[in-house]
Amino acid sequence: MTANARPHGRPTRAPVTARSARPSRKIGLGPGSLVYVGDEISGFVDVEVYHCTEGSDLERRGLTDVEELAAYRDAPGLTWVDVNGVHDVALIGRIGEIFSLHPLLLEDVVNENQRAKFEQHGEHLFLVLKMLLSSADGDEIEAEQVSVVLGPHYVITFQKRARDTFDPVRRRLADPASRIRQHGADYLAYALVDTIVDNYFAVLERLGDQIEELEDAVIADPSRERLEDIFEAKRALVEVRRMVWPLRDALAGMGRGDTPLIRHDTLPYLRDVHDHTLRVIDTIETYRDTAATMVEMYMTGVSNRMNEVMRVLTVIATIFIPLTFIVGVYGMNFINMPELHWRWGYPAVLGVMGATTIFLLMFFRRRGWL
Amino acid sequence: MTANARPHGRPTRAPVTARSARPSRKIGLGPGSLVYVGDEISGFVDVEVYHCTEGSDLERRGLTDVEELAAYRDAPGLTWVDVNGVHDVALIGRIGEIFSLHPLLLEDVVNENQRAKFEQHGEHLFLVLKMLLSSADGDEIEAEQVSVVLGPHYVITFQKRARDTFDPVRRRLADPASRIRQHGADYLAYALVDTIVDNYFAVLERLGDQIEELEDAVIADPSRERLEDIFEAKRALVEVRRMVWPLRDALAGMGRGDTPLIRHDTLPYLRDVHDHTLRVIDTIETYRDTAATMVEMYMTGVSNRMNEVMRVLTVIATIFIPLTFIVGVYGMNFINMPELHWRWGYPAVLGVMGATTIFLLMFFRRRGWL
Amino acid sequence: MTANARPHGRPTRAPVTARSARPSRKIGLGPGSLVYVGDEISGFVDVEVYHCTEGSDLERRGLTDVEELAAYRDAPGLTWVDVNGVHDVALIGRIGEIFSLHPLLLEDVVNENQRAKFEQHGEHLFLVLKMLLSSADGDEIEAEQVSVVLGPHYVITFQKRARDTFDPVRRRLADPASRIRQHGADYLAYALVDTIVDNYFAVLERLGDQIEELEDAVIADPSRERLEDIFEAKRALVEVRRMVWPLRDALAGMGRGDTPLIRHDTLPYLRDVHDHTLRVIDTIETYRDTAATMVEMYMTGVSNRMNEVMRVLTVIATIFIPLTFIVGVYGMNFINMPELHWRWGYPAVLGVMGATTIFLLMFFRRRGWL
Amino acid sequence: MTANARPHGRPTRAPVTARSARPSRKIGLGPGSLVYVGDEISGFVDVEVYHCTEGSDLERRGLTDVEELAAYRDAPGLTWVDVNGVHDVALIGRIGEIFSLHPLLLEDVVNENQRAKFEQHGEHLFLVLKMLLSSADGDEIEAEQVSVVLGPHYVITFQKRARDTFDPVRRRLADPASRIRQHGADYLAYALVDTIVDNYFAVLERLGDQIEELEDAVIADPSRERLEDIFEAKRALVEVRRMVWPLRDALAGMGRGDTPLIRHDTLPYLRDVHDHTLRVIDTIETYRDTAATMVEMYMTGVSNRMNEVMRVLTVIATIFIPLTFIVGVYGMNFINMPELHWRWGYPAVLGVMGATTIFLLMFFRRRGWL
Amino acid sequence: MTANARPHGRPTRAPVTARSARPSRKIGLGPGSLVYVGDEISGFVDVEVYHCTEGSDLERRGLTDVEELAAYRDAPGLTWVDVNGVHDVALIGRIGEIFSLHPLLLEDVVNENQRAKFEQHGEHLFLVLKMLLSSADGDEIEAEQVSVVLGPHYVITFQKRARDTFDPVRRRLADPASRIRQHGADYLAYALVDTIVDNYFAVLERLGDQIEELEDAVIADPSRERLEDIFEAKRALVEVRRMVWPLRDALAGMGRGDTPLIRHDTLPYLRDVHDHTLRVIDTIETYRDTAATMVEMYMTGVSNRMNEVMRVLTVIATIFIPLTFIVGVYGMNFINMPELHWRWGYPAVLGVMGATTIFLLMFFRRRGWL
Repeated sequence: MTANARPHGRPTRAPVTARSARPSRKIGLGPGSLVYVGDEISGFVDVEVYHCTEGSDLERRGLTDVEELAAYRDAPGLTWVDVNGVHDVALIGRIGEIFSLHPLLLEDVVNENQRAKFEQHGEHLFLVLKMLLSSADGDEIEAEQVSVVLGPHYVITFQKRARDTFDPVRRRLADPASRIRQHGADYLAYALVDTIVDNYFAVLERLGDQIEELEDAVIADPSRERLEDIFEAKRALVEVRRMVWPLRDALAGMGRGDTPLIRHDTLPYLRDVHDHTLRVIDTIETYRDTAATMVEMYMTGVSNRMNEVMRVLTVIATIFIPLTFIVGVYGMNFINMPELHWRWGYPAVLGVMGATTIFLLMFFRRRGWL
Repeated sequence: MTANARPHGRPTRAPVTARSARPSRKIGLGPGSLVYVGDEISGFVDVEVYHCTEGSDLERRGLTDVEELAAYRDAPGLTWVDVNGVHDVALIGRIGEIFSLHPLLLEDVVNENQRAKFEQHGEHLFLVLKMLLSSADGDEIEAEQVSVVLGPHYVITFQKRARDTFDPVRRRLADPASRIRQHGADYLAYALVDTIVDNYFAVLERLGDQIEELEDAVIADPSRERLEDIFEAKRALVEVRRMVWPLRDALAGMGRGDTPLIRHDTLPYLRDVHDHTLRVIDTIETYRDTAATMVEMYMTGVSNRMNEVMRVLTVIATIFIPLTFIVGVYGMNFINMPELHWRWGYPAVLGVMGATTIFLLMFFRRRGWL
Repeated sequence: MTANARPHGRPTRAPVTARSARPSRKIGLGPGSLVYVGDEISGFVDVEVYHCTEGSDLERRGLTDVEELAAYRDAPGLTWVDVNGVHDVALIGRIGEIFSLHPLLLEDVVNENQRAKFEQHGEHLFLVLKMLLSSADGDEIEAEQVSVVLGPHYVITFQKRARDTFDPVRRRLADPASRIRQHGADYLAYALVDTIVDNYFAVLERLGDQIEELEDAVIADPSRERLEDIFEAKRALVEVRRMVWPLRDALAGMGRGDTPLIRHDTLPYLRDVHDHTLRVIDTIETYRDTAATMVEMYMTGVSNRMNEVMRVLTVIATIFIPLTFIVGVYGMNFINMPELHWRWGYPAVLGVMGATTIFLLMFFRRRGWL
Repeated sequence: MTANARPHGRPTRAPVTARSARPSRKIGLGPGSLVYVGDEISGFVDVEVYHCTEGSDLERRGLTDVEELAAYRDAPGLTWVDVNGVHDVALIGRIGEIFSLHPLLLEDVVNENQRAKFEQHGEHLFLVLKMLLSSADGDEIEAEQVSVVLGPHYVITFQKRARDTFDPVRRRLADPASRIRQHGADYLAYALVDTIVDNYFAVLERLGDQIEELEDAVIADPSRERLEDIFEAKRALVEVRRMVWPLRDALAGMGRGDTPLIRHDTLPYLRDVHDHTLRVIDTIETYRDTAATMVEMYMTGVSNRMNEVMRVLTVIATIFIPLTFIVGVYGMNFINMPELHWRWGYPAVLGVMGATTIFLLMFFRRRGWL
Repeated sequence: MTANARPHGRPTRAPVTARSARPSRKIGLGPGSLVYVGDEISGFVDVEVYHCTEGSDLERRGLTDVEELAAYRDAPGLTWVDVNGVHDVALIGRIGEIFSLHPLLLEDVVNENQRAKFEQHGEHLFLVLKMLLSSADGDEIEAEQVSVVLGPHYVITFQKRARDTFDPVRRRLADPASRIRQHGADYLAYALVDTIVDNYFAVLERLGDQIEELEDAVIADPSRERLEDIFEAKRALVEVRRMVWPLRDALAGMGRGDTPLIRHDTLPYLRDVHDHTLRVIDTIETYRDTAATMVEMYMTGVSNRMNEVMRVLTVIATIFIPLTFIVGVYGMNFINMPELHWRWGYPAVLGVMGATTIFLLMFFRRRGWL
């Protein structure tokens, strides 16, 4: 799923197409029947397991056979199963069986069109959210769905393809002295979510820079392209907002802490990340306000330009149309036009026309049109 | 009831007419007196019964005599009574008597102007909602009311005419191993509602495609027809939103599960379909936002075009009006105009006019009007 | 009180004047001091009593002496006191004494500027609401306040003048087998309110028809009169909404059923009429949306027309102004203008002008101005 | 504090200045240190005491020494201390000491920039609200803060200067048979608040009349002055709304009745006055809606006028510019222009021009421009 | 962080840049790892301690070694630790260790992009809010984050650099008789917050003055610069609102008083300062309303000017274009034009033209264009 935020190119309209990523393929199937809903993807699903017990080194393995996961289900210590790829529904289904995940939970994992939400399914907590990524050239915002399942002493994450977003968490996991090792699986889940939410700020920063550039540009040159850029930025903001808004409620629900899976110590951290989503939303709202103001500025810019154009036309026309009439009068061929024979006729007409012009110029200056 | 979403034809305004489907025919009648309120319809009411017990094959019968229903009222196993046609109030009333349905419930069944709602009437749960259907050519959205009554071990559905929307449910019912057979009537009711809500996505997808097309079209050619198409799409969105919005609350109420008719196992499924309505609403809101932006783009497009037209007029007029004045001067017939007799008078005037033109062109270029 | 909805006449602005029906006449008087606040009205107050006991025929009497009411206060069976006229405060006060009505309740009865509300005053329930009536020619909506007092086994209604709105209820009362006779006073109160709310649909239907007509008219001819009609319709919608909105809360409060005066059986009926108000509000909101869209359509219609006018002007002026200049050149009277003496001078100039014209026409066609 | 509502004069912008009545004079001072914040005022503070016991006549005294108040603190019966003037903070502080008022309460009394609020401070209830007064010429709305302190058997009111607003209450107090004498201090407090809220209706009525006048005027003549009047009225509405909105919550809190200082009997009265504030807010919202519509009407009026102007210009220019070109052609001085020598040349040209004109007139009529 | 409110200069757009003060520097770091997020700052962190016991003089010390703070942790009496500078994270971390502050709390202290919030972390209450400061020349509003930590008998405040905002509190602390000395640490915390909120009024006053000036200016001269000033003021209001809005909730939470750290006596004061934030928000909303109205006034001002310009053009063109045509007719060189030879031809044409002009002038006057 891709939300474009390229304010300086032609709108690619990806936000809209992205949304319609064919959820209808699923109609008529029973709930719980796993059908992948998302972009076409092929290739292997990459499953990595991170496991550690107190004081031990971190064990990191890429699994070749998903059945090996069964060993980790009840292993003591802390386990993180990092599943990269959700299009292989058979494999996902097998992981679900191993960990006794609820069918609806699995269905959400393989459907890329989820809103952020927090649910408790039996002995698992389930959080879906969107990860935002700036593309390499910085002009696009990509959104990717991440599902986090929290069990008694393990965390399972599902996402579409391997990303380096979680690398800092991996590094901290590798450090036996880190808080992430001392706390349980709930803290690990928090750390992952926190990393994703921190990324929102990075993406918004970039968007903010673009909006700022645009703002200067709109004042300097209110062209049609600027307007399309503004609309493009507005759309990206709407898109990001649509993703973050439900996350706020999901994290609030998670931070309420009425489940034994989340220990009391971890609650302040969850409330902190909830607080971060509030800040993200605040920032988005401020940007939207700025974008709305830019449209208003553009509109008044257009009006002002039209006014200016009309004023020039009016001044020119108002001065010369009467003069042209006057010279037309003395271009008539009546035989009986005494003025034509006056000695000072021509200079007199020129004088009258000069006086008229001066009078009109003064009139326009008084009106502020010059 | 028909909500038009034909963005490329003349607005048919059906959404509005549809709404006024003469509810007033009922004024003055006692509540509970069954009066059909809806489009004129004739023909037989088609009542089908699906019945199965554990392990048995699915029994499917089209009833010829409604009295046969009495046998199913207390029959063990799972029964689905599928009533297609609600204009025969006598028949509907008789069905109500057989299953002891509350008079107000029946009144709602035969009145096509209900908002989606969930109610508990004695031993029955009652859910009304709208089914959305894309017409064959894809240009129209039809809305049809479906009433779902959930009893202890039976489900009764009422709709205006037989549709193939529920076919997938029928197929799953026929499979003895399907979850729908293992769970009770509440799960069947859920499956029916889920099918309807999944259809919303298909309809929205189509609407989304049309909006996307429109968006490209508005940029390429901001014509009057485009605008009417946008307004038409906006109206369809308002219409769909009006139908889905109350459904959200109805499903939330149903998912709260404070009734013995809904077993604990089924609640996550109900919450899931509730979640789907939230997604539908999200999508609608995004589309509405897009539509509003399109109107803004159209408006600025119109302003820009006017600006362009005015600029051309002003440039032409500003250059030629003074020139015309000058040639008018030397078209005057004063006998005493020495310039007329100068040898280089004519070329000099042409030169002055050329210089004026060049000056004005430079002025316009500096202003960015050329 | 009169809310105009005449979309095809000059706005009469009654909605606004109506609202200021001099509530200030009351300032400084103690609360509970009865002062009629409403339009000037004279004539007798018409008090009718409907009384029935189980199985008996309905007794219907027009009272000549209000003291006769005392007999009904504690009479067994069901009594409906229908008071038509509230300007005779002495009489209203006396009725209040007979039935021990709270002074504030009476004060509200004689003040026509109430919002819809539901209150419990000691042993009485009190509901104020607005009845909407389409005038005979259908162009006006009249609003009239109805007060419903529910006592243990009687209902008292107050309204400004006798209307036939309640006739259906009267007919049903006369039928000993009707549900209205079998249930108690609370059901009678419900039936009256239901009749009023059903009338809202009739009024809205008419308004909807007018809006639909307007919509077609705006597209065909965006004239000034159309706009005033739209604004008029918008105003009527605001007016109706202002009346229905608080009714929703009042009926929700009444349907909560925490009073012995409303039996458990009646609650579904009250919730049903509450549900109807929700539908009324939905419809109003959809109409308002339509009206807002119509204003937008009108505005863009005006812009488009201006564009068209400007385009015609620009095309004409841009073609002929340069031509006029050219012919002006050869109208100059310089003695030394060799072209004038060329044999093919005149045809050559005509040719140049023809070529210029063709070039400009092509230019305009390419811009889409022709 | 003065909110201007002079729709027919130049905006005085008082609403905005009024708001900034230098609350900053207080920064850095400890809370509870009494500093008068409001317009400059001098002169004596006028303290009046109204005292009555059951059956006795009303005792009314203007105090010369504030210490006399101490006698009333514990006197049986009902006491109303009416303090007119709050700029003498020493005196106010002394009154506070005598009645043991909370320092924050006193601070609010002498600060004129309070929002309406209801607070319980120990054994006192405290209500602040704004009194609205139409100025003598009816063109201005003045707002004045009134503080009402309710003690066990006394009421203390503070306002900036003596007003006749409370006169009706004084009259009713003087009548031993009045309800105000039979009920306690809470009822007296209610009566005072009710009088103030009733005044809102009078002020709104006047505002409504002005808006109505404006509405007719905008249609008749959409001039710049009208627009400023509309904006002025809008601003007055915003101002009044800002005052009434928090009062609604304050009275709702007061009507909740969870304090022994308010007896059960008085609650319906408080709820009644709360209800009145709802009506005031309804009315304000309707007026704001009307004002917004008037701005829209004005805008479209301006657009329509521009359209009309442009149409006239276009018709004239489009007819005469080609004609002028034609006559220009035959004003050229080529020696070889055969038409000039034709016998019917001149009439033929006149004929061509007449035909052109007729054709254009028909074209314009078909377009609806004439 | 700087919010510009310079209505008379070029927009500096600081509000937007300020917001993006690189929170992304933190991504990937574990929560609780202290990283300063804010403007570049160097220099020493200035830590001052104010300590007093009952009856004693105030002890005020600038600390050179942060370890000295340990002595105050459990010292009886009242202690205020005033930390000016938050960029030295090692020092902040050490202070946190000494007072056992929660890691998340410290993280918020050193991150300048917090929303106002109130949190309870173990035995500490934590309030973050923004202090608003008008710059020396009054044209800029600066916002600076202040963190207030309330412990059992001490208050710790953190801010970016030493300011004189708290001077009044310091003075009151020095006075042994002041309420601030008699109450505990919670009252001191309140006094600090109150001082900050009082400052909001001063800042808003200044903003209000600027808006008022602007309002007069927009009427007098609706130029492009005015519009940018309005947008600038709007943006400053959005910025201030974004800061104050969450403070309202934070103070409401603090005033709820469900912690032993806040004594019952202090609650009214906290509710009072909460009330002040409501007033601040009211004022902001009124200003925003005013700003929105000013944009509307500007827009209609632009439209009116365009109308005026067009009217002048149309009047001039409509009068002179036909006249020019007429004189063109008699400038034609047909040999057979009898009028040219009439004795009164020339005067007759002049007369016709005069009559036409008078007719058109009357026409324009009737239309109100003159």
